[in-house]
Amino acid sequence: MARPENAAQARLLARLRDDGPVSRAELAELLPVGRTRALAELDALTARGLVHQAGPAASRGGRRSALIALVPELRFVGVDIGATSIDVAVTDAHMRVLAHEAERSDVRNGPDAVLEQMLGILDRLRQGGELGEGGTVHAMGIGVPGPVRHRDGVPVAPPIMPGWDRFPLRDFVSRRLGCPVVVDNDVNMMAVGEAHAGTAKSVADFLFIKIGTGIGAGIVVDGRVYRGVTGSAGDIGHVQVEEFGPTCACGSTGCLEAFFGGAALARDALAAARSGRSAPLAELFAREGRLDAHDVSVAAAAGDPVASALIREGGRRVGQVLASLVSFFNPGLIVIGGGVAATGHALLAEIRSVVYRRSTPLATGNLPIVLSELGGLAGVVGAARMASDEVLALPETG
Amino acid sequence: MARPENAAQARLLARLRDDGPVSRAELAELLPVGRTRALAELDALTARGLVHQAGPAASRGGRRSALIALVPELRFVGVDIGATSIDVAVTDAHMRVLAHEAERSDVRNGPDAVLEQMLGILDRLRQGGELGEGGTVHAMGIGVPGPVRHRDGVPVAPPIMPGWDRFPLRDFVSRRLGCPVVVDNDVNMMAVGEAHAGTAKSVADFLFIKIGTGIGAGIVVDGRVYRGVTGSAGDIGHVQVEEFGPTCACGSTGCLEAFFGGAALARDALAAARSGRSAPLAELFAREGRLDAHDVSVAAAAGDPVASALIREGGRRVGQVLASLVSFFNPGLIVIGGGVAATGHALLAEIRSVVYRRSTPLATGNLPIVLSELGGLAGVVGAARMASDEVLALPETG
Repeated sequence: MARPENAAQARLLARLRDDGPVSRAELAELLPVGRTRALAELDALTARGLVHQAGPAASRGGRRSALIALVPELRFVGVDIGATSIDVAVTDAHMRVLAHEAERSDVRNGPDAVLEQMLGILDRLRQGGELGEGGTVHAMGIGVPGPVRHRDGVPVAPPIMPGWDRFPLRDFVSRRLGCPVVVDNDVNMMAVGEAHAGTAKSVADFLFIKIGTGIGAGIVVDGRVYRGVTGSAGDIGHVQVEEFGPTCACGSTGCLEAFFGGAALARDALAAARSGRSAPLAELFAREGRLDAHDVSVAAAAGDPVASALIREGGRRVGQVLASLVSFFNPGLIVIGGGVAATGHALLAEIRSVVYRRSTPLATGNLPIVLSELGGLAGVVGAARMASDEVLALPETG
Repeated sequence: MARPENAAQARLLARLRDDGPVSRAELAELLPVGRTRALAELDALTARGLVHQAGPAASRGGRRSALIALVPELRFVGVDIGATSIDVAVTDAHMRVLAHEAERSDVRNGPDAVLEQMLGILDRLRQGGELGEGGTVHAMGIGVPGPVRHRDGVPVAPPIMPGWDRFPLRDFVSRRLGCPVVVDNDVNMMAVGEAHAGTAKSVADFLFIKIGTGIGAGIVVDGRVYRGVTGSAGDIGHVQVEEFGPTCACGSTGCLEAFFGGAALARDALAAARSGRSAPLAELFAREGRLDAHDVSVAAAAGDPVASALIREGGRRVGQVLASLVSFFNPGLIVIGGGVAATGHALLAEIRSVVYRRSTPLATGNLPIVLSELGGLAGVVGAARMASDEVLALPETG
């Protein structure tokens, strides 16, 4: 299945993807090229198997127009490789999730093991019929928890991904599947997901803040992911929030992640459990043998003041960094997501309080700060959406 | 003098502005529209008085082509309204400064007084023949030290500009001069100046950091100024660098500007002079009755350890904020300018040291941090350049 041949076709396809089926008459009016040319482009897309007639459109008076849609066979796959998990989702042409599987994994096992596991999940989904009759994947998007050279889909010096540095991820998977593959940092994928189907749908300039094992920002400028000159834009986990703070895995001190990444939160929860300061956390630890962000939110929800304080203190640190970024970037929206963000509204309240107090008033006058609506699906939806561009959009130039 | 009629004409004009005179043969090859159409567009621009034949071009073999240039009568005016000064520069079509005047002023006197002063300077330049025979200004750009709604050229709640809030600056000056006027934040103008004629000429994504009376950032993404959703992007002067730091004019505590804006530096220098800790500063104060950033750099250059420490300490604070922004934005270049930046290389060394130590290594691997080459002219050159778009470019859409 090939890409559109020109900008007019790409525009028709984007409209059909983002808004669903549209009448032939309306589509013909969408383009500035004249009705005859527009209908010719539509016919070309039909001939190439990308669009089809999905029945009669609602009447607008006069002759009834046909309803045009992307072909129902289109399947995109979004993959979210986390530090400790793999998510694989199959979507239709509109990024509606048809099937979703998540498994525990460890990104430190390296690309061979992790990608076999991912392809295994995909195979099971294919055998379960989730890819449709042909079992065809039309394009795949993969998010990874580290910096990526987007141009050729290669992880570059990712700190928590030993063995992945310069692994030809895009080309390897593309060869295995025989379809286009696109790779990006997981936070960028989540931002794209929110822009496609979440709260950020109509916002041109916004930030997606992931608080999970790591902490990172996805930056969207004018509807497009901003990656910076070497692809590391948004890497805010190692911003120093206190000169003499705890030592971070990166070797520096006082980094935001060292205070409130998933690992830092687990560390603090464990200390509170062991020292006897928090009975609820001690109980959860005794039961599960481990503690994570979810346990802290469970304990906090049950009224444990120590767990609540951990969340509030973390929110304050995140808010401190976001306050500077809001003054600097003046976004139209901030979406908070990732595993730790699932600790919920207490965290959100603390972040809001610091940002609204500390940022330039002009920048916060009308700035919503919200939790992700897509939650755990933001990454896979964004990856599928980015994948869809490989089939439905013109290649990016420059 | 009207704008180009289409994208082809705009492209020809931009090429002539940015690269100077070009042969008719080369220009004809610049456009993807075919030679005949390109030459027709060139003729249309000639007929409208925007370009002319400037003589024969260097031979490329065969028939000698004519050299095409923007008409030499084009005059743009760049105005930089600072907190305590007004700069007015007249440039030719390529933003070469033909004349430049600076006067002390006080932005707190309000728009009527300040704009009369500015128009007075312009009149003197006109009478001195600096605008050429006709005395015509083809477009003017004005930078002001506060947030601006760029769309209609209106300052919005500028903290250090009492009386300017919502003053219709663009329309007022445009009516007085009878030419297009464009207004922006002074830091954005400086960034545009650096992009046109300074170190940033070939860098798509960079930051211009102004350290003057105030501290601010000009953000350039993909060659264009990024202003944020309410026009306040880059407002980093009030980022909190220490929770219990000095009280800032903005009412908050520990803001970057409260540590190292021009006023903070003057305050610290005065304290050092009065307490007898710095003999050179005391001497300068006795002679001038006042102290500013320039005095501190003079004292530091003369070997005064107290003055040196003030600059180093300020550089460290600026570096602290920039380190976060570099991790977040991953720029290709940072240019440091503004009055306090004229304290020079000791400041630069300190900023570099903190940024290179504290930012994500991927983002600093190849990140030059340099002093502005344009110095005090960055603002007026940028303003003239932004003004030139009002005559030579198509209106921005969206």
